[in-house]
Amino acid sequence: MYYVGVDLGGTNIAVGIVTYEGKIIAKKSVKTMADRPFEEIIKDMADCTLALLKENNISLDEVKSIGIGSPGSLDTENGVLVYANNFQNGRNIPMKAILQKYIDKPVYIGNDANVAALGEVIAGAAKGYKNAVMITLGTGVGGGIVINGEIYEGQYSAGAEMGHIVVVHNGEQCSCGRKGCWEAYASATALIRQTKAAMEAHPESLMTKVAEAEGKVSGRTAFDAAKKGDEVALEVVKNYIEYIAEGLVDIVNVFRPEVILIGGGICNEGDYLLNPLKAFVNANTYGGGLHPEQKIAIAALGNDAGIIGAALLKR
Amino acid sequence: MYYVGVDLGGTNIAVGIVTYEGKIIAKKSVKTMADRPFEEIIKDMADCTLALLKENNISLDEVKSIGIGSPGSLDTENGVLVYANNFQNGRNIPMKAILQKYIDKPVYIGNDANVAALGEVIAGAAKGYKNAVMITLGTGVGGGIVINGEIYEGQYSAGAEMGHIVVVHNGEQCSCGRKGCWEAYASATALIRQTKAAMEAHPESLMTKVAEAEGKVSGRTAFDAAKKGDEVALEVVKNYIEYIAEGLVDIVNVFRPEVILIGGGICNEGDYLLNPLKAFVNANTYGGGLHPEQKIAIAALGNDAGIIGAALLKR
Repeated sequence: MYYVGVDLGGTNIAVGIVTYEGKIIAKKSVKTMADRPFEEIIKDMADCTLALLKENNISLDEVKSIGIGSPGSLDTENGVLVYANNFQNGRNIPMKAILQKYIDKPVYIGNDANVAALGEVIAGAAKGYKNAVMITLGTGVGGGIVINGEIYEGQYSAGAEMGHIVVVHNGEQCSCGRKGCWEAYASATALIRQTKAAMEAHPESLMTKVAEAEGKVSGRTAFDAAKKGDEVALEVVKNYIEYIAEGLVDIVNVFRPEVILIGGGICNEGDYLLNPLKAFVNANTYGGGLHPEQKIAIAALGNDAGIIGAALLKR
Repeated sequence: MYYVGVDLGGTNIAVGIVTYEGKIIAKKSVKTMADRPFEEIIKDMADCTLALLKENNISLDEVKSIGIGSPGSLDTENGVLVYANNFQNGRNIPMKAILQKYIDKPVYIGNDANVAALGEVIAGAAKGYKNAVMITLGTGVGGGIVINGEIYEGQYSAGAEMGHIVVVHNGEQCSCGRKGCWEAYASATALIRQTKAAMEAHPESLMTKVAEAEGKVSGRTAFDAAKKGDEVALEVVKNYIEYIAEGLVDIVNVFRPEVILIGGGICNEGDYLLNPLKAFVNANTYGGGLHPEQKIAIAALGNDAGIIGAALLKR
């Protein structure tokens, strides 16, 4: 039997045929065009799924279920998208019911960050572990929790919003309405803001040239200049890594997961990011010396994690 | 069948005979005398248990298991107390093995804050819920997590240390070594520190008289003066409640539990504490408006929660 996983993003709908073990044997994608009626988006999910199955000579009889990883607030029990701010019509969409009009199979839905965490546990960097927390450092800070091999999502599927734990009481305004959230300090967006502020205060910093060469200030600007020894950039990077680490220490103290995974573009910095991060986390963890160091690793599957996790929401 | 629960505290060892439903039918306690050899402490646990059973005409055959709720870091799998700073000899104590020398029954151990949370879920203020988080505001800030009706304790039984999530980056020094922990702002100890600081800056505050009448500055000083309208005390209480609330919002955003319970002496303030706390939490929760308000309640069982939860660690 096969499982179909759908990763619904703001730009693309990615569909994959997945084995029980979490291997993607084929995938295909179509543009989301997020501003159109949601019914059309889901019809395209169905069409893309059917086309992919046909291309791979797999009949619907061989498909056990379809899982959708979706952004936004979900009612996973009933398969309803309650609200997603990045879809113009993303309010109270019975995703499961609509998809089943086109394909008569069990349909499950899950939050995109949660299913990515599950995908990494099933087939990625957390394979072999039962308790893992995944953090994605992107435009925002996303979180996914896996306990006993299953997604923990909390009541109303509204938990695992790790980006919205506070790190600075009365700190930076977060887009969620709260002040001082981790996301407002540790996201790529926050790093760019921190980089711009440092460049303004120190126009002589190498970051100015780096940004000019790239044509913009990005999440790489400070890292690139820091690696060349620029003092101001080194300070930006040091502070940014400390902000990431603060939230990770919280996760260790609350969950003590077998492994913490970090995803998102910033992970391209590899050990340059990971080594100081681990040092801070292990120095600040509660009762640190009593136990082995916390395992922290970079997520392995990229966008495939969402497809795999969605496909295998129930297996 | 009955279950025996032992609440091992720094001052008393409390033993209870508990039914499957979580009712304590009899209890008894002895002094801990925490500085003596641990073997003696555990022998007293056994003696107290046997005496209590005898007094109630219950034979050992009618006892299914014994559970111990213990402070400190535990190896729950092997029944070992790894380290407890409030016991002079509290290092690498095979509690289960020692107790079984005196009573040949299955023995389970659990962290005291975790078993208290379980006790409240089984028979207290969280009865009927499967996912709950309990916070105890005392000398420190303790935490217990129940997921799917079972304690979640993390690897090395070292999770659920909610007192040690950060609320102020680079803030007050916490006893755990980290800076800015919730415990350093929201514990009764922290409230007393905040009260003393405000009294020093404003000796004219009513708090000075309240403290003189009580003979000391306590966790009640600021609350008592605030209720009489003292402006400085009102500010202390407002800030303190905000600090508590910051950590509770984190718990909501991460767990979205069915209910959050608050325990500890400060709960005697009742709605005077709870109402502003709920207002802050619900105003700052992620995606607040989309879902019903977070249930927050005061723990109901006091010290009995630990006995019940320990007794029913496995039932």
